[in-house]
Amino acid sequence: MKDLKGVALLGQSGGPTSVINASAAGVFLEALKHEQITGVYGAVHGIKGILNEEFYDMTKEDEEELKRLKNTPSSAIGSVRHKLKDPKKDDSDYQRLLEVFKKYNIRFFFYNGGNDSMDTCSKISKFFKKSEYDCNVIGIPKTIDNDLNATDHSPGYGSAAKYVATSFMELYHDATVYDRPMVTIVEVMGRNAGWLTAAAALAQSKGQGPDLMYLPELPFDLDVFFSHVQKTLDAKGKVIVAISEGVKTKEGKYIPELYQDLNKDAFGHAQLGGTAQVLAQEVAARMNVKVRAIEFSLLQRCSAHLASKVDVKEAYTAGVRAVRAAVNGASDKMIGFERISTDPYKIKYKRVSLRKAANIEQKVPLEWILPDGKGMSEDYVRYALPLIQGDDKAALEDGLPRFAQLKKIRIPKK
Amino acid sequence: MKDLKGVALLGQSGGPTSVINASAAGVFLEALKHEQITGVYGAVHGIKGILNEEFYDMTKEDEEELKRLKNTPSSAIGSVRHKLKDPKKDDSDYQRLLEVFKKYNIRFFFYNGGNDSMDTCSKISKFFKKSEYDCNVIGIPKTIDNDLNATDHSPGYGSAAKYVATSFMELYHDATVYDRPMVTIVEVMGRNAGWLTAAAALAQSKGQGPDLMYLPELPFDLDVFFSHVQKTLDAKGKVIVAISEGVKTKEGKYIPELYQDLNKDAFGHAQLGGTAQVLAQEVAARMNVKVRAIEFSLLQRCSAHLASKVDVKEAYTAGVRAVRAAVNGASDKMIGFERISTDPYKIKYKRVSLRKAANIEQKVPLEWILPDGKGMSEDYVRYALPLIQGDDKAALEDGLPRFAQLKKIRIPKK
Repeated sequence: MKDLKGVALLGQSGGPTSVINASAAGVFLEALKHEQITGVYGAVHGIKGILNEEFYDMTKEDEEELKRLKNTPSSAIGSVRHKLKDPKKDDSDYQRLLEVFKKYNIRFFFYNGGNDSMDTCSKISKFFKKSEYDCNVIGIPKTIDNDLNATDHSPGYGSAAKYVATSFMELYHDATVYDRPMVTIVEVMGRNAGWLTAAAALAQSKGQGPDLMYLPELPFDLDVFFSHVQKTLDAKGKVIVAISEGVKTKEGKYIPELYQDLNKDAFGHAQLGGTAQVLAQEVAARMNVKVRAIEFSLLQRCSAHLASKVDVKEAYTAGVRAVRAAVNGASDKMIGFERISTDPYKIKYKRVSLRKAANIEQKVPLEWILPDGKGMSEDYVRYALPLIQGDDKAALEDGLPRFAQLKKIRIPKK
Repeated sequence: MKDLKGVALLGQSGGPTSVINASAAGVFLEALKHEQITGVYGAVHGIKGILNEEFYDMTKEDEEELKRLKNTPSSAIGSVRHKLKDPKKDDSDYQRLLEVFKKYNIRFFFYNGGNDSMDTCSKISKFFKKSEYDCNVIGIPKTIDNDLNATDHSPGYGSAAKYVATSFMELYHDATVYDRPMVTIVEVMGRNAGWLTAAAALAQSKGQGPDLMYLPELPFDLDVFFSHVQKTLDAKGKVIVAISEGVKTKEGKYIPELYQDLNKDAFGHAQLGGTAQVLAQEVAARMNVKVRAIEFSLLQRCSAHLASKVDVKEAYTAGVRAVRAAVNGASDKMIGFERISTDPYKIKYKRVSLRKAANIEQKVPLEWILPDGKGMSEDYVRYALPLIQGDDKAALEDGLPRFAQLKKIRIPKK
């Protein structure tokens, strides 16, 4: 719909990243420029805020602070993990959304998130169309997991990958410092796709990375793992392992689940800990060696001080392009990245169908994963290196990052 | 001893920091300038390397790479946790050191480490003196724990404190993003002194820090802790806790020990996990709320990409001053910092007795710790802020830090 006039609304959804607010900055700053856009709203905690008619008035914010969003981690207007019902079974949520959109004359809707959010976005778009309510709906990709389909990569991945690669390099220096055998097992996020664990290969490519890497794309065998560790320990005296939180046995069990089951009979209660910790305990017991388990935990998705400049720029631009697309009449699309060339690195922003983006999980190509936990192929390194280039972080104030400070003024409920 | 001429030797000791190599850079680059110094050695894994006559020849390194040490984390020439015997009971290690020093004509000895290392340094110095072997021995402070006496602060603390403060700010943004109750418990290093946990107060001073903080200087009471968490949860819906790995009950038990004991009867085996994890499990069970435990682990001591510029400079200068002191005849001293003023921040490098530096653990003043887990006083913030100022990190190569690459050429064994 080309000649729409009305309010623009952005919702942030799912797990935070270092650059999700860079996309928000792009949306807000661009939306403020267009005459067709009569108001700029931020949904308080995504879909949940919309259902409750809770919006921030972004026109009341200082431009300077909106610019600072580019380097402020996490979701500035609040995120949500609320799954809408299947509209075929129960369309009450959709009816409510329609009611709210009509009431506030929201005609441009932007939703920034991962797979589930693109699915939500797609369903809303279709429901509005069916209900003959004119609203241009555009999805903006976001995920450290990099598992969104129909785009070369997703904003958030480059910065998280840079965090993982840099941290492995630093840990390499730390973990090899003593003159005694030692095993360090580092757990990286990624429940189904191993993209983020794969980033450890960038440290490896500098000779300062893990010795062994395990992605969830391949079944994980405990005995094989222990033999890999023992072999490396015998050869080098020090072993660094990168392991995805999502690795599973060929029977489909996560590692902590496995130990929970194993221990249940004997002690009648569940074992604590994540994948790295459970494996660390087992390696220590079997190999009589000092072992340390490390989890990057939330740090890998919110360390904006280590954001990739390329990622910040692309996240911001995706927000800008989303607004331009909507204003120009596009709807039911997600802004995706098409890689034109890798060396020099060049991408094209494109509009892809929301449905296509939503329903397929993009996993790491199996041919990029080396056998025996040896890491990633050169193809992966070539793919990922351009995404972690450059620094772009908040200015320092008192030696600490000066993040955006929003006034968060609410739109009065109608 | 003023007119000494011979080899200068540096040993690195104890746990790594982001800037221990900055001190090494200071020692090496300064030592290379002095005619009195006939060779510049690096001990391979500290005292252990010396006992084994294992040295790197630092004169063979490129100056450019030695400069890069300033921004390379951990211990470039290898560290050690080897405790020398009490020379009064068994002086064989000291006799061996004396033999090696004589054999290689080592006349200037620098040892970079924490409390234990300064103690080692002091004992070696006294033994050499008693044995009438002329060698000027100078200690260089290093510890993220900031527990060295006779100095305003220690190199390594500022960078670790900057990591802790920045990470708490970023976690604050991440942990408050959802519209549901949540408790995040973050464990910080510091077995006996709470300096590093205290650094979370710098994030707090920006309104983006933990709600509750627990240092090992005060006895930790589980019931009081749970009531603090419950109260904050009721009031705010979200709770962020900073807790030192070293907190103990008034009976002197670490928290994981406590749960180990508690669970022993019921299940007959030890509970896993550190302080944060054990507390997280207990909070989840008692308060029926989502809880996440995070450990900064090794990252807080090796994240050179987040080093403080002030810390890098002071660590480097301490190395330079150590060499100048030794060449000018000083011995049995540690390079300490005396704070001249806080605003503007100004310090003086001084030479303090090694014995004085070694034997007293500098803890956080109790009057700086607010009651009820509320954090730190303004006095602490004033003390610590100058130490985290500015950035100084390795240049990027392919988007990743270009750390020093040493040739590590060995001195032939005599």
